Amino acid sequence: MTQLKILYSAIALSLALTGCSALPTAQIIDPLPSWNEGQSKTNIIHFVNTVTNPLNPDYVPANERIATFDNDGTLWSEQPIYFQLLFAIDRVKQLAPQHPEWQYTQPFKAVLENDKQALLAAGKKGLLELIMATHAGLTSAEFTQIVKNWLATAKHPKFNRPYTELVFQPMLELLSYLRANEFKTYIVSGGGIEFMRPWVESVYGIPPEQVIGSSIKTKFEIRDNKPVLVRLAKINFFNDKADKPVAINQQIGRRPIAAFGNSDGDLQMLQWTAAGAGARFMMLIHHTDALREYAYDKDSHIGKLDQAMDFAQQGNWTVVDMQKDWEVIYPAQ
Amino acid sequence: MTQLKILYSAIALSLALTGCSALPTAQIIDPLPSWNEGQSKTNIIHFVNTVTNPLNPDYVPANERIATFDNDGTLWSEQPIYFQLLFAIDRVKQLAPQHPEWQYTQPFKAVLENDKQALLAAGKKGLLELIMATHAGLTSAEFTQIVKNWLATAKHPKFNRPYTELVFQPMLELLSYLRANEFKTYIVSGGGIEFMRPWVESVYGIPPEQVIGSSIKTKFEIRDNKPVLVRLAKINFFNDKADKPVAINQQIGRRPIAAFGNSDGDLQMLQWTAAGAGARFMMLIHHTDALREYAYDKDSHIGKLDQAMDFAQQGNWTVVDMQKDWEVIYPAQ
Repeated sequence: MTQLKILYSAIALSLALTGCSALPTAQIIDPLPSWNEGQSKTNIIHFVNTVTNPLNPDYVPANERIATFDNDGTLWSEQPIYFQLLFAIDRVKQLAPQHPEWQYTQPFKAVLENDKQALLAAGKKGLLELIMATHAGLTSAEFTQIVKNWLATAKHPKFNRPYTELVFQPMLELLSYLRANEFKTYIVSGGGIEFMRPWVESVYGIPPEQVIGSSIKTKFEIRDNKPVLVRLAKINFFNDKADKPVAINQQIGRRPIAAFGNSDGDLQMLQWTAAGAGARFMMLIHHTDALREYAYDKDSHIGKLDQAMDFAQQGNWTVVDMQKDWEVIYPAQ
Repeated sequence: MTQLKILYSAIALSLALTGCSALPTAQIIDPLPSWNEGQSKTNIIHFVNTVTNPLNPDYVPANERIATFDNDGTLWSEQPIYFQLLFAIDRVKQLAPQHPEWQYTQPFKAVLENDKQALLAAGKKGLLELIMATHAGLTSAEFTQIVKNWLATAKHPKFNRPYTELVFQPMLELLSYLRANEFKTYIVSGGGIEFMRPWVESVYGIPPEQVIGSSIKTKFEIRDNKPVLVRLAKINFFNDKADKPVAINQQIGRRPIAAFGNSDGDLQMLQWTAAGAGARFMMLIHHTDALREYAYDKDSHIGKLDQAMDFAQQGNWTVVDMQKDWEVIYPAQ
């Protein structure tokens, strides 16, 4: 028995020295160092403590801890236009010599003439049209390589950094914090699944099977005696607004207990999440930082935030004021 | 130091007593007790040892260990007809008084007249038609409840057991064995996702987000101030043959390293799996046991196994002879 007491003392000492203890980690090490103290941070930590505490009536077993994140404007920036649209623009310019007809047809004409207004007017559906036209006939494997090549060289016009560095440091910490508490973190984005999958695992720690997004149809074919999946010039699914809960039900089959967005395109996902029983967490990122990122909401062509803000106020959802709540925006260079 | 030696001795003794050791588990405890010794069992264990051994050139990191399983005829029985079709038949009979037109239209007429030939001729697509017609307008939550109620009472005509007990014991062991080796196990079935999800987690240990199948379209609506998902009478996706690899790429975004099926409907999934680099495992279940289950292959309306068998022989895939390879078929009552 004395031997055991010695052992216990040694363990207690080493825990004290390394900063570990039986108390909740949040009280010792800040899991969200890039979040300034305030209501947003308090709400997150309170929610996580609630659903992970087996003694709390709102405890949620680990297999039901589903958290869904919009991507554009929620996990990374989306201005001056969606980054996937910038990728499509570069592809159109590259392929234009083989497509003389693009000089006369929208949205290609807008791209070749750098007509931003016409391009914005084409919206997310226009983006998908560009993607389809510039990538039809490629296999999934070929397309993945093209995305990787672009990301390795392209830089953002304002920040002059690779796009994969323009992810929000506070959200990276939030993803890690949730996963450390046995949440399964999903992307539920209007972006293309095969545009996101090549990089989100290394950047966000989100594996390809947890990426839900828009897609074009693919077809199984045997080419040179090998099976391939060929990308067709047809929309398969456009993952926005009321189709986000549809896709969540289709692919996850469980209602999320936490959902994170930044625009009216995320409203139904947050409503669907809010309507479940027990503790729920809904968060909107409000882009309020013109200096360090961008400031926009109800009048923006990209990431319009209007109706969802009304619902957030009525439903007591957490609204992040980027300028006030975030100590830093992007990871250090 | 003497204290530590005492501790180590105690640990070594308890490991010896509990049958644990540093040697591979397979040599001590049989992970597949319902599999008779033979080529099939040897192949499975050899494959798992290969991809999980970090020193083997064919080692696969845990996050890439994706295994996909067909359901009907691979994880549970599918005779005399798909169990989901038996469910749909019961629903048609129940709802028939409200649908006098069904007396004159196929495939409903066949159901009401117990015309098995006409029903079989309608095939998997006919099943989906029945499901759609009998379940349109219901919310996903209501449908889930109907499935649960049916499974709690319905019994198989030959075995007089609930359908969820007609799962293959050797395959349950295989699923557990793979998961114990950090595989992520998926269902990739022609069956409906909302027909499978209510029971596969408790029966197979496969969570809803790892169920890929056929589906009808759903629509997000606000009813009585609450958001619901309503099931529409329209096919969304029919997950069979060449569409299985399409759905795998769509929802998992990684190529499986192991795939399990029993019919020509699984051929392309197995081809897609086989075409990846490194160690691969492809298995077909051959139903050869007329006494304990059913015996059928190339002439069967349900689970036809013809072309896939030729590919299996050419590609050296593992073919399970149910009668010879399986010590038991179903879990004990």
